[in-house]
Amino acid sequence: MIEIGRAKRASQVYGFDDIAIVPTRRTRTPEDVKLSWSIDALTFDFPIVAAPMDSVMSPATAIAVGKLGGLGVLNLEGLWTRYEDPEPILAELAEISDAVAATRRLQQVYAEPVKAELITERMRQIRDADVPVAGALSPQLAREFAGVVEKAGVDFFVIRGTTVSAEHVSTAEEPLNLKEFIRKLDVPVIVGGCATYQAGLHLMRTGAAGVLVGFGGAATGRTRNVLGVEVPMASAIADVAAARRDYMDESEGRYVHVIADGALGRSGDIAKAIACGADACMVSTPLARAEEAPGHGWHWGPEAWHATLPRGERVKMGRVGTLEEVLVGPSHTPDGTMNLVGALRKAMATTGYTDVKGFQRVEIVVHS
Amino acid sequence: MIEIGRAKRASQVYGFDDIAIVPTRRTRTPEDVKLSWSIDALTFDFPIVAAPMDSVMSPATAIAVGKLGGLGVLNLEGLWTRYEDPEPILAELAEISDAVAATRRLQQVYAEPVKAELITERMRQIRDADVPVAGALSPQLAREFAGVVEKAGVDFFVIRGTTVSAEHVSTAEEPLNLKEFIRKLDVPVIVGGCATYQAGLHLMRTGAAGVLVGFGGAATGRTRNVLGVEVPMASAIADVAAARRDYMDESEGRYVHVIADGALGRSGDIAKAIACGADACMVSTPLARAEEAPGHGWHWGPEAWHATLPRGERVKMGRVGTLEEVLVGPSHTPDGTMNLVGALRKAMATTGYTDVKGFQRVEIVVHS
Amino acid sequence: MIEIGRAKRASQVYGFDDIAIVPTRRTRTPEDVKLSWSIDALTFDFPIVAAPMDSVMSPATAIAVGKLGGLGVLNLEGLWTRYEDPEPILAELAEISDAVAATRRLQQVYAEPVKAELITERMRQIRDADVPVAGALSPQLAREFAGVVEKAGVDFFVIRGTTVSAEHVSTAEEPLNLKEFIRKLDVPVIVGGCATYQAGLHLMRTGAAGVLVGFGGAATGRTRNVLGVEVPMASAIADVAAARRDYMDESEGRYVHVIADGALGRSGDIAKAIACGADACMVSTPLARAEEAPGHGWHWGPEAWHATLPRGERVKMGRVGTLEEVLVGPSHTPDGTMNLVGALRKAMATTGYTDVKGFQRVEIVVHS
Amino acid sequence: MIEIGRAKRASQVYGFDDIAIVPTRRTRTPEDVKLSWSIDALTFDFPIVAAPMDSVMSPATAIAVGKLGGLGVLNLEGLWTRYEDPEPILAELAEISDAVAATRRLQQVYAEPVKAELITERMRQIRDADVPVAGALSPQLAREFAGVVEKAGVDFFVIRGTTVSAEHVSTAEEPLNLKEFIRKLDVPVIVGGCATYQAGLHLMRTGAAGVLVGFGGAATGRTRNVLGVEVPMASAIADVAAARRDYMDESEGRYVHVIADGALGRSGDIAKAIACGADACMVSTPLARAEEAPGHGWHWGPEAWHATLPRGERVKMGRVGTLEEVLVGPSHTPDGTMNLVGALRKAMATTGYTDVKGFQRVEIVVHS
Repeated sequence: MIEIGRAKRASQVYGFDDIAIVPTRRTRTPEDVKLSWSIDALTFDFPIVAAPMDSVMSPATAIAVGKLGGLGVLNLEGLWTRYEDPEPILAELAEISDAVAATRRLQQVYAEPVKAELITERMRQIRDADVPVAGALSPQLAREFAGVVEKAGVDFFVIRGTTVSAEHVSTAEEPLNLKEFIRKLDVPVIVGGCATYQAGLHLMRTGAAGVLVGFGGAATGRTRNVLGVEVPMASAIADVAAARRDYMDESEGRYVHVIADGALGRSGDIAKAIACGADACMVSTPLARAEEAPGHGWHWGPEAWHATLPRGERVKMGRVGTLEEVLVGPSHTPDGTMNLVGALRKAMATTGYTDVKGFQRVEIVVHS
Repeated sequence: MIEIGRAKRASQVYGFDDIAIVPTRRTRTPEDVKLSWSIDALTFDFPIVAAPMDSVMSPATAIAVGKLGGLGVLNLEGLWTRYEDPEPILAELAEISDAVAATRRLQQVYAEPVKAELITERMRQIRDADVPVAGALSPQLAREFAGVVEKAGVDFFVIRGTTVSAEHVSTAEEPLNLKEFIRKLDVPVIVGGCATYQAGLHLMRTGAAGVLVGFGGAATGRTRNVLGVEVPMASAIADVAAARRDYMDESEGRYVHVIADGALGRSGDIAKAIACGADACMVSTPLARAEEAPGHGWHWGPEAWHATLPRGERVKMGRVGTLEEVLVGPSHTPDGTMNLVGALRKAMATTGYTDVKGFQRVEIVVHS
Repeated sequence: MIEIGRAKRASQVYGFDDIAIVPTRRTRTPEDVKLSWSIDALTFDFPIVAAPMDSVMSPATAIAVGKLGGLGVLNLEGLWTRYEDPEPILAELAEISDAVAATRRLQQVYAEPVKAELITERMRQIRDADVPVAGALSPQLAREFAGVVEKAGVDFFVIRGTTVSAEHVSTAEEPLNLKEFIRKLDVPVIVGGCATYQAGLHLMRTGAAGVLVGFGGAATGRTRNVLGVEVPMASAIADVAAARRDYMDESEGRYVHVIADGALGRSGDIAKAIACGADACMVSTPLARAEEAPGHGWHWGPEAWHATLPRGERVKMGRVGTLEEVLVGPSHTPDGTMNLVGALRKAMATTGYTDVKGFQRVEIVVHS
Repeated sequence: MIEIGRAKRASQVYGFDDIAIVPTRRTRTPEDVKLSWSIDALTFDFPIVAAPMDSVMSPATAIAVGKLGGLGVLNLEGLWTRYEDPEPILAELAEISDAVAATRRLQQVYAEPVKAELITERMRQIRDADVPVAGALSPQLAREFAGVVEKAGVDFFVIRGTTVSAEHVSTAEEPLNLKEFIRKLDVPVIVGGCATYQAGLHLMRTGAAGVLVGFGGAATGRTRNVLGVEVPMASAIADVAAARRDYMDESEGRYVHVIADGALGRSGDIAKAIACGADACMVSTPLARAEEAPGHGWHWGPEAWHATLPRGERVKMGRVGTLEEVLVGPSHTPDGTMNLVGALRKAMATTGYTDVKGFQRVEIVVHS
C-alpha cells in the first residue's frame, strides 16, 4: 500500500500499456495453438466477443462475427431497437464532425424509446442466420425487457453497464436483484462491468456464466475525467481472476468466465488481457475500424448519449479493412488493428503456449 | 522516504492525475445521494465554492452561484473594488492575445488601489440578492480592510494567498497575527492555502472555520516554474485531512472544514478531492468556461499581476455553456467541464455512497 | 516482484531510456581506450555488427563495414537472394510514402522465393572483397539453406528471428534442433533473439558462439502493439549477461558473447548496452541513415513483410552522412547518430575505462 | 538499489522536474531574506554565477553581471580569446537557422587557436570595470594558459569540462595533476563538472574553493544521447553536498562550495538546486535570453563545436528582457525566465527561510 497522505492509502494498479508479455525458453508452431473457447453450452473458434455498441454491432455484423466463429452481441437499447430503420441516422451522425454538435445529436436520437417488438425482430434476424444469438441490456432496463428477450430466444443474455454491482441500493424504486433475476432466466447471463476482486466475486455469486471486467471501450469512455473513476485493466483482470479461483473453491467447482471489456484497442492488448487472467475479450475499438461497421468509421459507447451527463466521446477511427480481415486476417497494417485472432495465436506460439488457459500463466513484466 | 542523494530525502506525493476512484461491490441510485454541505451556520446544496478570482466571480456571478445553491466568493482586491466599472477593462483584456502584453497590462490595471467604499458597495449588491455573502482578501491587505468588510456584513470572510501560514515572520512591520485577527472578527473565516499537515494544523488552531488546501488554480498558476514550490493536491488534501482529525481530537471536537483549492479542472477532480478527504472544493477553471464568466473566456489568478514577479499565466478557456449548465447541468460535453454537481452525484452513486463524509473513505488507486 | 492484481505478479524491467551511465572519479584519454572485439577466430576493431536487414546491408555495404573494421551481416532471405538485381525494387519502395501501400508492396516483393544460387553468389562477392563474411537466416529457413551457406564459405552463420528458442515444439513438422544443427555446422553460429535469463542460457547450451538479445530494430518493430510481447533492452541484456556468467561456470569456461540487438538508435544506447553487460551490439537504425544504405533513407525489418501478420513499420530515417562518418566519424550532428565508435570511445574515457569488458561494470542509474 | 536484470543493479536518481519544494508552517517577508554569497575573499549579492559560455558571457555582459552584484565568468577558450573581434562571427552564426549547417560552422570558427594575448586583454577589460574577474579553461588547456591567466590577474580561476576528475589517466601525455596545479596557483579555483559523491569528494581534496556539479547547460547538452552519460541534477547535488559535509570533517573545517551547473532553465530550478544542497548556481540558459546576450538569442555550449563528436545543439532561446530584468527583475513573464533573484527570494520567504544555508534544509517531495 502507498501512502497518498497521512489520511489516505492506495494500492498501485497497472494498465495494458504498463505491462508486456515475456517469451519463455520454448517456442511453438502457430498451427499448434488451440484458441477455441467454450462457455456454457457453446464453443467458439476464438475467445473474442464483439461488444454491444451501435458503432460496432448491427444485426448484420453480429451475424458476420458469428459466421467467422465468434460471438457478436447486439445492444438491445441501441438504435436498432429504437428505430425501424436506423441507417439514415447512422449516416447522418457520420456527417457531423463537431464534437459538441455530435453529443447533442446523440442525446436527441437516443431519446427515442426502446421498442419491445424491435427487440424481438432483431433477435429473430440473427437467429435465422444460424449463429449464436446474444443481446445486451443495461441494469436499468433489464427487468422491463427481459421477458421479451427471453421469449425472442437468445443463447446469451448480457447485462452491461459502466459499473454493475450485485448489490444496487435505491430508496425510490425496488432495485434489480441480480441473483433472483438470473435464477429466473432460462438463458446464461454475462454481467458487468466490474473492476475489483470484491465486486467480481459478488457478481459471480449471482449465478452469472461470465463476468465483464472493465468499464467498456477506452477510446470512447471518459469516466476518468468526468467521475474520477477508473481501474486500469491489467490490475482489474488480475483481481477478478483471483475472484474466479476463490469462487470456484467456495462454489465447489463452478467456473465463471472472466471477460475483459475495455482498453482493448490493439491485438497486443487482447494477448495481455489473457496473460492477466481473462478467459475471453469483449472487443469494440478494432471492430469499429471494419468496413462493415455500422458507425461508418466513428465509434461511441452508451455513455456518449447520457441525457444530462455524457461521459464518452464519439471518436473517429477510420477504416482498415473488412470485418474478416480485422478478426482473422490477413493483415496489411503493422499496428495491431488487423488479424486479431492471428496475432493472439502468434503471441501464444512465440511464448510456447498451446491453449488459452495455459497462456494465463505466461510471465509478464512492468516497464516504464 | 526516498533518498534523492546522500544528503537529501523526500517523500513521494501524488496529484489528481496520479489517482483514480475504485467502485465497490455496491452501487446506488443517484437520487439517493445527499450533497448538501453545512459549514458554520449555513447549509449549501452542494460542496462547491466559486473561487475569488476576477475571471470567474463578479457580483453578478457570485449571486448566480448563490441562487443555484452554492457559495460564490468575491475577490475584494480585484477589479471590482479597484474600479467603479471594471467591465471595459475586462473587455479590453479579452482582446489582448499576446501573453507578454497581457501580463504587462494586468500589472498596470491592478496597480490601481483598492477602494474601501467599493468593497462596501459590492458586498451590499450581493446581500441585496438574498444569497450568502463572502469576500476574500490577501493576508497583506486583510488588516487594512477587515473592518470595512465586517461592517459591510458578510457570511464568510476568506483570507487567501498562495501560501498562508499561521506564523508569518517579519522584522520590518508587525505581521498579521491570524489567531488574534480571527478571534476579533465577528464572522467565520476560511483561510489558506496550505499544503501540509503541519501548516494545516497551525491554520486550524487560529480558529478558522475552514482551511484552503492548495495554491489556487492549476491552469493559471506557475508557482512550480517560478518558485520551485508545489505540492500535488491528492497528497496535500490527504495530509491536511489528517490534521483535521488530529485537531478535532486536541480541540475536543471542533471540526474545521478542509476545502480543496487548486487543480480542480474537471468534475472528476472534484470527486477525487473529496475521496482524498476534502469537505468541499473551491473551483475556478470550470467556472471560467461559463458564458456569464467576467473573464470573457479567459482565466487568471492573483499571481498573474504581481508587479515584479508574476507567477501565473492568463489562459484561454473558451466557453462551454451557461453557469447553470456548468454547475448543475445538463451537460453536452463528455469531458468533465459541465454538470459538476451531477458528476459528483454520479461518482458517489456508482461507488455506493450517499453522503460526502462517507465518500471520503472510498477506495482509491495509484496508476502510472 | 510487483503485484499486478491478486492473481498475477510481474517484475519491473528497464529500457535504455530509463537508465544512464554515471561518471566515476577517474577519467581517461580517449586514445587509451581499446575497442577491439574478438569472437571465435576473428578480431574486429570495434564491437559493432551491422544487422542483416535489407535497408541496411547490401553486399556493398557489408563490404564497406568490413573495410572499416567491423562485421556486416547480409540477410540471406532478403531481396539480394530473392532477386538477381533488387536495386529497382529498392528504388521503387523508396518512392512509396503511404504506409499501408508500402506494407502491401513489401508483402508482394518478399513473396518471391529465396534462391540458393543467389546466396552462393552474394557470399562470394563479400569474400572476394577480403572482409569477414557473415550471412543470416531465420530458424524457418535455416535447415533448407544451411548447406548452401556453409558451402559458400562464411565466417559467421547468424540465425535470427523475432524470438528464437532452443526448444521449438511443433506437431506438424520436425522442428529445427538447434543444438544438433549447430554441432554439425563447420562455422561459428550467432543465434537469437532472446530476452530472458532462461532463454539465453538455453541458447548458450546449443553451442552458439554468440547470442542475440532483443527483438531487432526498435524503430521498425511493433511486436509490442501486435503481440503484446516486449522486454526492454537494459533488463534483457542484464539478464542474459547473468546467463553468460552461469553458463561459463557450468561449461567450465566457454564464453558465449552477448550481442545486443534492438533499440540501439543512438550512440548512447550502444554505450548503455555494454554497460548492462553486452559484449557487442548489432546495429541497424543508425546505419539506415548512411548515404550508402540500400534503403534510400527508409528502414524496415523482416517483420514488416509477413504475409498475414506484419509487425513492423517501414520508417523514414533520412540521411546524415557517409557510412564511414556514421560508424567512425567525424560527426556533424550532436544527436548520437554519427561517429558511433568515437562516441563509445568517449563514453568509456569519460568514465575511466579502457576496455569493453571493464566498461560492463560501470555504474548506471535509473531516472524517471 | 534496483535490479535492472540479474547481472546489474542501479540506484534511482532524480532531476529538478521530479521534485518540488514544500512550504512549511511559517512564512516570511521577502525583504528579510539574505541572499548574499561569500566564497573565498569575495562576497556577492546573490548566489548566481553566469556560466562561461560564448552565447552568454562577453567581457561586456561579465561586467554587467558584476555591476548587478553577481559573478560573471568568461570562457577563455571561446570566441573572445580566439578572435580580436568576434562580433561579426556571432552575428553570422545568428543568421544560420539550419542545425547541421550551424554545427559545421561552429566546428570551423572554433578551429581558430586561442591566443594568450587575447586572454590577457579580456581579463584586463573586466578588471578595469572594477568588478570581480573570473575566467574559465578546460582541463585540456588549463596547463598551457594558466600562467597567462594568473598573470592577467583574476579573482577566480574556473576549470570546467563535461566531466572533470581528480584522477585523469593517460599513457600518451602527462595528464593534468589537479591537486598540484591548484596548489601552485595563487588564485582560488572552481572546478567541475562532477556528478557523484566520490568524484565530488576527490575534487574537493584537490584544494578547490568550489566544485561544479552537473554537466553544464541542459538545453544545449546532448551528452545523454551521444554518450549515454547523465546524472539528473537533484540527485547529483544531494550526493556532492554529502561529500562537502564529509570533506569538511576529514579536512577539519574546510568548506568547499557546491555550485550547481546544469538544467537551471527556470528560476524554480535555482531554488530546487539550493534545496538539494547547492551553495550557488552557475546559470546559462536564462541569461541567453537577455537582450545583451552575445548569442543574439541563440545558446550553445562548448560541446557543440567538438571537431569529431559534437554533443550539444545550438538552441534558439529568444529574448525576454534586459540582463538586469532577467537577473533582478522586474519580471513581465510568468514562466520563471525573469527576475531570478526575486524568485529565489520569494521561494525562501514563502517557505520561511532567511538565508541560503538554512534553505538547503527545506523539505522537498518527489512527484510523478
